[in-house]
Amino acid sequence: MKRKLRMGMIGGGKGAFIGAVHRLAANMDGLIELSAGALSEINDIAIESGKMLFLPEDRTYTSYEEMIEKESKLPEDVRIDFVSIVTPNFVHFAPAMMALEHGFNVVIEKPMTFNLDEAKQLKQKVDETGLLLCLTHTYSGYPMVKQAKQMVAEGALGKIRKVWVEYPQGWLSKLTEREGNMQAAWRTDPTKSGKAGAMGDIGTHAAHLAEYITGKKITHLCADLNVMVEGRRLDDDGNVLLKMEDGVHGVLMASQVAAGEENALKIRVYGEKGGLEWAQQEPNTLIVRWLDKPTEILRTGTPWVGSYARFNARTPGGHPEGYLEAFANIYRNFALTLSAKIEGTEPPKEALDFPRVEEGIRGMAFIDNVVASGQSDVKWTENKV
Amino acid sequence: MKRKLRMGMIGGGKGAFIGAVHRLAANMDGLIELSAGALSEINDIAIESGKMLFLPEDRTYTSYEEMIEKESKLPEDVRIDFVSIVTPNFVHFAPAMMALEHGFNVVIEKPMTFNLDEAKQLKQKVDETGLLLCLTHTYSGYPMVKQAKQMVAEGALGKIRKVWVEYPQGWLSKLTEREGNMQAAWRTDPTKSGKAGAMGDIGTHAAHLAEYITGKKITHLCADLNVMVEGRRLDDDGNVLLKMEDGVHGVLMASQVAAGEENALKIRVYGEKGGLEWAQQEPNTLIVRWLDKPTEILRTGTPWVGSYARFNARTPGGHPEGYLEAFANIYRNFALTLSAKIEGTEPPKEALDFPRVEEGIRGMAFIDNVVASGQSDVKWTENKV
Amino acid sequence: MKRKLRMGMIGGGKGAFIGAVHRLAANMDGLIELSAGALSEINDIAIESGKMLFLPEDRTYTSYEEMIEKESKLPEDVRIDFVSIVTPNFVHFAPAMMALEHGFNVVIEKPMTFNLDEAKQLKQKVDETGLLLCLTHTYSGYPMVKQAKQMVAEGALGKIRKVWVEYPQGWLSKLTEREGNMQAAWRTDPTKSGKAGAMGDIGTHAAHLAEYITGKKITHLCADLNVMVEGRRLDDDGNVLLKMEDGVHGVLMASQVAAGEENALKIRVYGEKGGLEWAQQEPNTLIVRWLDKPTEILRTGTPWVGSYARFNARTPGGHPEGYLEAFANIYRNFALTLSAKIEGTEPPKEALDFPRVEEGIRGMAFIDNVVASGQSDVKWTENKV
Amino acid sequence: MKRKLRMGMIGGGKGAFIGAVHRLAANMDGLIELSAGALSEINDIAIESGKMLFLPEDRTYTSYEEMIEKESKLPEDVRIDFVSIVTPNFVHFAPAMMALEHGFNVVIEKPMTFNLDEAKQLKQKVDETGLLLCLTHTYSGYPMVKQAKQMVAEGALGKIRKVWVEYPQGWLSKLTEREGNMQAAWRTDPTKSGKAGAMGDIGTHAAHLAEYITGKKITHLCADLNVMVEGRRLDDDGNVLLKMEDGVHGVLMASQVAAGEENALKIRVYGEKGGLEWAQQEPNTLIVRWLDKPTEILRTGTPWVGSYARFNARTPGGHPEGYLEAFANIYRNFALTLSAKIEGTEPPKEALDFPRVEEGIRGMAFIDNVVASGQSDVKWTENKV
Repeated sequence: MKRKLRMGMIGGGKGAFIGAVHRLAANMDGLIELSAGALSEINDIAIESGKMLFLPEDRTYTSYEEMIEKESKLPEDVRIDFVSIVTPNFVHFAPAMMALEHGFNVVIEKPMTFNLDEAKQLKQKVDETGLLLCLTHTYSGYPMVKQAKQMVAEGALGKIRKVWVEYPQGWLSKLTEREGNMQAAWRTDPTKSGKAGAMGDIGTHAAHLAEYITGKKITHLCADLNVMVEGRRLDDDGNVLLKMEDGVHGVLMASQVAAGEENALKIRVYGEKGGLEWAQQEPNTLIVRWLDKPTEILRTGTPWVGSYARFNARTPGGHPEGYLEAFANIYRNFALTLSAKIEGTEPPKEALDFPRVEEGIRGMAFIDNVVASGQSDVKWTENKV
Repeated sequence: MKRKLRMGMIGGGKGAFIGAVHRLAANMDGLIELSAGALSEINDIAIESGKMLFLPEDRTYTSYEEMIEKESKLPEDVRIDFVSIVTPNFVHFAPAMMALEHGFNVVIEKPMTFNLDEAKQLKQKVDETGLLLCLTHTYSGYPMVKQAKQMVAEGALGKIRKVWVEYPQGWLSKLTEREGNMQAAWRTDPTKSGKAGAMGDIGTHAAHLAEYITGKKITHLCADLNVMVEGRRLDDDGNVLLKMEDGVHGVLMASQVAAGEENALKIRVYGEKGGLEWAQQEPNTLIVRWLDKPTEILRTGTPWVGSYARFNARTPGGHPEGYLEAFANIYRNFALTLSAKIEGTEPPKEALDFPRVEEGIRGMAFIDNVVASGQSDVKWTENKV
Repeated sequence: MKRKLRMGMIGGGKGAFIGAVHRLAANMDGLIELSAGALSEINDIAIESGKMLFLPEDRTYTSYEEMIEKESKLPEDVRIDFVSIVTPNFVHFAPAMMALEHGFNVVIEKPMTFNLDEAKQLKQKVDETGLLLCLTHTYSGYPMVKQAKQMVAEGALGKIRKVWVEYPQGWLSKLTEREGNMQAAWRTDPTKSGKAGAMGDIGTHAAHLAEYITGKKITHLCADLNVMVEGRRLDDDGNVLLKMEDGVHGVLMASQVAAGEENALKIRVYGEKGGLEWAQQEPNTLIVRWLDKPTEILRTGTPWVGSYARFNARTPGGHPEGYLEAFANIYRNFALTLSAKIEGTEPPKEALDFPRVEEGIRGMAFIDNVVASGQSDVKWTENKV
Repeated sequence: MKRKLRMGMIGGGKGAFIGAVHRLAANMDGLIELSAGALSEINDIAIESGKMLFLPEDRTYTSYEEMIEKESKLPEDVRIDFVSIVTPNFVHFAPAMMALEHGFNVVIEKPMTFNLDEAKQLKQKVDETGLLLCLTHTYSGYPMVKQAKQMVAEGALGKIRKVWVEYPQGWLSKLTEREGNMQAAWRTDPTKSGKAGAMGDIGTHAAHLAEYITGKKITHLCADLNVMVEGRRLDDDGNVLLKMEDGVHGVLMASQVAAGEENALKIRVYGEKGGLEWAQQEPNTLIVRWLDKPTEILRTGTPWVGSYARFNARTPGGHPEGYLEAFANIYRNFALTLSAKIEGTEPPKEALDFPRVEEGIRGMAFIDNVVASGQSDVKWTENKV
């Protein structure tokens, strides 16, 4: 890369959670600078947040429309290269579409949009413009998740038979949305979050991870979605049977009422020759069980992992890389790919591996289908896009 | 107890797996002596096995019919107190029924019978005779499983919301039944095992554990049963959604093609106030996660566990008790209960807690219903008994 | 074996801890029967304990002298084959010596005697009589400890460089001996326990384990022994630097004031090519780290362990074997060896592997030398026998 | 903070390990910008590295002398605020001293200098100038290490009795320094590393951690230092008995020949009421064992940790923070403290907690004393400064 890329952030003002995470991730590798921001709809917060982040005043905007408009008129060597959209779900589509229409690349939080139709429109716009859209399915940024994917792709496990992916959290075990928790409030509000609660917020991560590692698409769902906390308006717990391509069967669990759990995403994949286990809370370990030899422990930063895991780690074995590094990998790969595009070069193939608009569509379809399945008396619902 | 109880074993000759386990378990506490045996249908093996076990020649029988007949004619202070039936599933019912009819108490392997009808007949005979029938659902013998049950019963977790029970094994990842593995051969043969494979062999353990700990019955099932290894005749893998009494939802997984897994039964139970996690392969630890305070680690043999866990442990904390001790707890509790009955005393309430004929019926019904659900296009199948 | 071996127990009456453990261990495999007992010096307890254990009245003795005398006069096919001595340290030597003098084999708790001189006398008597003496260093009975020893012996790790053995317990963190705890009372009393506290009680286990696995003797010690709890009369905590044969260096730690710890014996051994880690509280796992390939997890009961680990396990992988099974392995190997001797046959070589009088002498010398080192200002004290 | 702080880096050019880590850590929170660099002594590498890091050409220097000279003449609102020294040990003192003399604050790698005398000179200069010197003892930046320190300081464990700190690595198990490994080459070279090998490189981290958490100084040492790999010129393995203030005893182990280990720093601290365990490879967990209640698991980002742990975490529980975040905490706390100084405000008390020149002196004294002890026949060597 010849220069840092310039980022304009939409959302993520003072008090927001995921916006801060995006900035930490974007900062880490020194490839991206925060150059502009429309950090809040509320003017005072937007301005105060801009100061805290050392943004120049004239690039601290009070709406994304203003930012996109004005930035698009700045000289090419000054204006932002991409926007990063970290607002609640119902404010994803409009800024993303407007950014694309004004020639800006897009980084966007998942789920990509409020509904499937919006997702398809974004896809069409991305295809038209040839711009990049990067969807921050963080967990696919972990080195050991990359390793799992590479091992499966290279056939180390033989034909895949079974996937178990579980995502228990406990933070919505009470009616937290009525206790002043902003994160809880919009996530449990169907007008802001969309038609699913836990399934949209974390179920989509689980579904993405299952498809990412196995390379197989989920074709059918059988969902049992529940509202466990009285008074809640969206599912806070769900168990889903899965059929995937090529005869893979599985289970997906997502719960936000698993009291006492933090963020315990975990996946196991079994094939004819062995099985993989990866848990997000101990992310630098990939347990590989074999049918015909002792279990092996693969670790981030050690010499025995493949090119994707190596490319996405920054330190040698035993120096734990965490959630922010996984997130930073998404940004870094996006930045390397975008830079190469700008500079007319070819990025390393490992850098091309980040979630894009297609994954965003699959996520929105999953939400539609899992909710439909939850309401159906028939066992299997097709996971159609 | 004033004397050791006398056991006559049916099955479990040389080369058998589970029979040896029963003997180890029965021996451990010095409360039971192996007094007679019909250890094999094959005369030579029966006799050789008797010698290896130091049985007197005249009580080494070559059929269970002979044993039950002859033992029933021995003087009361010589003849066996109970039979222990450790044969394959299709040879459970007849010896159990004959033993009961001749006044012998029964310890019997799970699943209790070959089909639900046999199970109901046994129940009727047990009710008629007032004899004891003990079903060896081993895993409910672990101290930390008892602790989990007691905590749930005492309301420590509040209302229960969710159960996640999984039982992956990998030993049937190939067509092992055609490679001379006797265990595999009968377990995958519908004429010997019954209508279910993995669901009968280990799914029943998982279902029992879920009901045992929560105190809630499984009311509805939605099963996806699979044959993953080509040429196999019974399910070797299954994922099942559960509805249980009082609004508990859950998932049960049982697989014998989870390549590389040993015997990784694990259960998690979540309530309003916290969650429990217990894994059979590290059985002396019960992880207790709380909604409003740090996670606690409860351990076998420590002072902070309840009366049931204490009653079922033999050593102080840090002296790991394992599978055989859990199995021995079933035998010990049965023996204490039976002795008390014989001697006209009252056993400690903790000793009364072992699986009985009712659990056997529930297991057989589960097999029927889970197989029916697996074949159904409707989402929910009632788990009727 | 053609018959069960007959055991006479010395000590281990009602309320004792380790006597009960010995019985559980001796019972488990059905190779040994408890035939006689001098279970307590207190007549009433001896008699009551005999009843609880279903001993015949005429073989329930009230002193070990009486037992040894009378048993030695019983017919050969009735009298005990061996004594099991489970009394406090200061009552080890006399019954052991008397048993040997009357032709009885001996199983004895560690540390073998009250002082080194007694140990040497026992050795001489064992040599004279050709009888077997088995010392119950339990931890060497674990399958994965056997596996570790076998791997080191076979050179899997290359030349051994470093040993780190630690044994933290917390149960003496207060002045427990003054609070009615019988176990604590004699163990902290120099007239009953000997010249060392923690180093005698658990340090000897750690030292034995280090020598057992590596096959190298400890040649020099540098000890820092402490009394952490005011008012205690013997060391309750110690850290010891080790030099071992062939350039191995190490550390041995033993503490009974590591508040909150249960029985956390753990050993790590590093060689040129890799390292081993085994922890008693998760005893079925042996972690094998390699210099040039991924870490492997070896497990009890799996096909990839050596002949010693296989010989000392009763169940397939995933059926945890614990402390009592390890203890039972000591008894079983002793029983197989003794039976073979009686019957004039050759036991399997794996059965010959149990601790004997030589290990007992090394333990007593370790106690002498570690205490001397603790009192010395010179860095290294020779670990002379 | 009103503006980002400006950093000039000394060392850390292309191919260096720790320099890259410093930049990642400094970048992460967006509080620091890399404004200048003397990244290598080799002109080409310095220049190429500057480009890769998007440094302006005119602030890409080819020696630290040049950088310090020229930067000190730039206007106050342009010139760097501090230097970050990431060179090998023998090039620590001169640039640090020169920076201080020119009015620049200093961040510096450990061990702080090449010998104790240099360390004392730096201390004097820091005292004279009132400038800040921050020593990057990374591991004290972890939230759960802060939590451990705070719990000990607040008396949660009662009087501290025992410390065990161990730091096994395996990367020098062969004569790696002769195989082209630059890191190994200077670290094992006494003219570049100083008088200690493993004890200087990682033993100092272990010693710092022990003193940091307990708040007690190491007063006496008894060291067994070894060269395990033939041909190596500095210790690659050592075991050290410790006496600390107020009757605390302990052990410190540091090894770079623990084959197969990654970076397995671990510390346990026991007091009268309980014990703490923290392992760097699972850094978000602090195990707290209690004498009188169940073990608790404290976790980064959960509500039950103290103010220091909270201040030093960026994400909620279950989003693992790792080595880079710990490193970033050192930089962030230094930056907050330096900014407050510049702006005449008071930083949060938690920000003041980063290692300084005093810790650097203690580290250098530890190296002197541990080497002296290793060569001594007397048991205890005073750890004098």
